[in-house]
Amino acid sequence: MNFNVELKTRIAHIDEVLNSFLPPAAGYQQIVQEAMRYSVLGGGKRIRPILIHETYLLCGGRDCSITEPFMAAMELIHTYSLIHDDLPAMDDDEYRRGRKTTHVVYGEAVGILAGDALLNYAFEIILQQIIESEDSKKMARAAAILARKSGVFGMIGGQTADVVNTGLPLDTRKLDFIYSLKTGALIEASMMIGAVLADSDDQTISLMEETASEIGRAFQIRDDILDLTGTMEEIGKPVLSDEKNKKTTFVTLNGLNESESEVRSLSSSAIDKLNSMDRKNDFLIELIRYLTIRNK
Amino acid sequence: MNFNVELKTRIAHIDEVLNSFLPPAAGYQQIVQEAMRYSVLGGGKRIRPILIHETYLLCGGRDCSITEPFMAAMELIHTYSLIHDDLPAMDDDEYRRGRKTTHVVYGEAVGILAGDALLNYAFEIILQQIIESEDSKKMARAAAILARKSGVFGMIGGQTADVVNTGLPLDTRKLDFIYSLKTGALIEASMMIGAVLADSDDQTISLMEETASEIGRAFQIRDDILDLTGTMEEIGKPVLSDEKNKKTTFVTLNGLNESESEVRSLSSSAIDKLNSMDRKNDFLIELIRYLTIRNK
Repeated sequence: MNFNVELKTRIAHIDEVLNSFLPPAAGYQQIVQEAMRYSVLGGGKRIRPILIHETYLLCGGRDCSITEPFMAAMELIHTYSLIHDDLPAMDDDEYRRGRKTTHVVYGEAVGILAGDALLNYAFEIILQQIIESEDSKKMARAAAILARKSGVFGMIGGQTADVVNTGLPLDTRKLDFIYSLKTGALIEASMMIGAVLADSDDQTISLMEETASEIGRAFQIRDDILDLTGTMEEIGKPVLSDEKNKKTTFVTLNGLNESESEVRSLSSSAIDKLNSMDRKNDFLIELIRYLTIRNK
Repeated sequence: MNFNVELKTRIAHIDEVLNSFLPPAAGYQQIVQEAMRYSVLGGGKRIRPILIHETYLLCGGRDCSITEPFMAAMELIHTYSLIHDDLPAMDDDEYRRGRKTTHVVYGEAVGILAGDALLNYAFEIILQQIIESEDSKKMARAAAILARKSGVFGMIGGQTADVVNTGLPLDTRKLDFIYSLKTGALIEASMMIGAVLADSDDQTISLMEETASEIGRAFQIRDDILDLTGTMEEIGKPVLSDEKNKKTTFVTLNGLNESESEVRSLSSSAIDKLNSMDRKNDFLIELIRYLTIRNK
């Protein structure tokens, strides 16, 4: 297996899926649809949709078409959260993935509305799937996981704790809460949704949640490391932004060496869990290695 | 029937429903939950939930408990749209319903997040209902109407056209688009959802959509009239804000007299449609009169 080729193929497929689900830009509200397309189709590693798809395969799923609305909805929700995070009242970021952020290109009002529109549209996509599916309950269970993990007990909850603590000293417990909800929740939802769609039992769904939790934490700590050691060219946004924003991170609390070691330990543990499953998915294991040792 | 007493009873019931569905304020994300409760439980006419409930009764619905999650979700979505509309980058309003707006009390970042959280939570509530219901498909059909009418082809689309045209001259066609989507869409969704939950046929659902469209338009024109003729004490927010924001409205295009006459005509037409139904709902008809001749 050539991992990079396989990854590119998957990203290209997801880009096509996203393009097909997004509304065309037309009518008096055209600018918000343009902003939606600009932000969603502007690159990105598509980690969460890939995790949905690969976990679905790992858990024995066969009809890959049922994962597509969830892959699209997940990426739309992830993207809306980035648009709103980048707003002047939040992180005030001018660049994302090497391009101007949405509010910089379209203005702040349209930035806010494009974020709202993407969150809303994610549920439009999913509800259509629930209506059309022969197994509406299963689709609704997967959708409820997405909603819960995106909301005030998931991503938004983590983002809130992050925002209100910016510039303040953070202890390990509060930092863990932020990492677990802000970054972890959508990764957990992705793997859980893959398992639910493949008709997994509750034990397997929980195992996928735990695995994803470790991946999410490793991914976030790697992000903190890159903010300190990477270049803008490599990571597509300004480096040292944590220092600029006086952010407490795992790295500022524990140092680079312990951070690297924590990432390795989390990554191994997640891979061990995946190896305990009946089926194998080599690409998924390579993906975890890639996510946790990546340099961008 | 004493309309005002009946209205108060219904509002009190909806306030209880909202209070019971909203998450408690606790944990590291407490502030966003407080902001959600502050904005949702701060009064309001609860028009949209009432329309869901009364249309459900008009269409022969009996088990009122199934309307509650939809009443809550609808009001949460309406409230999130107000929070985001009031932000500095949008209308920059300091008062709403006679109280400070959410971003003024909790800061802009938490205002944005509380809006996101309410939109997200609306779908958490609805998806739970879809999972638990014996008729998941029906619930999903009602939910899909809510999602569609809230999104880029509904409320958000109208809000976008409104925002990007602020300060610019508007023709009648564009103004109609904005009224129909920004104000009309959620009113239409409310009456359609009531009809869907009561197992109405497609023809009845369409009739409710048309009726609601007239009510929404009459309601918006009445709002424009009040902005010109009301006092801050009466309407709970600063008057003459349209003039301040150089907004084109039905009133600025057509004058006060024609506006009053248009409201009367729309109101009569909506009432005629309701009177064409097999069942009667006197409260609903009184409500339409109240909404279109209100002075606050």
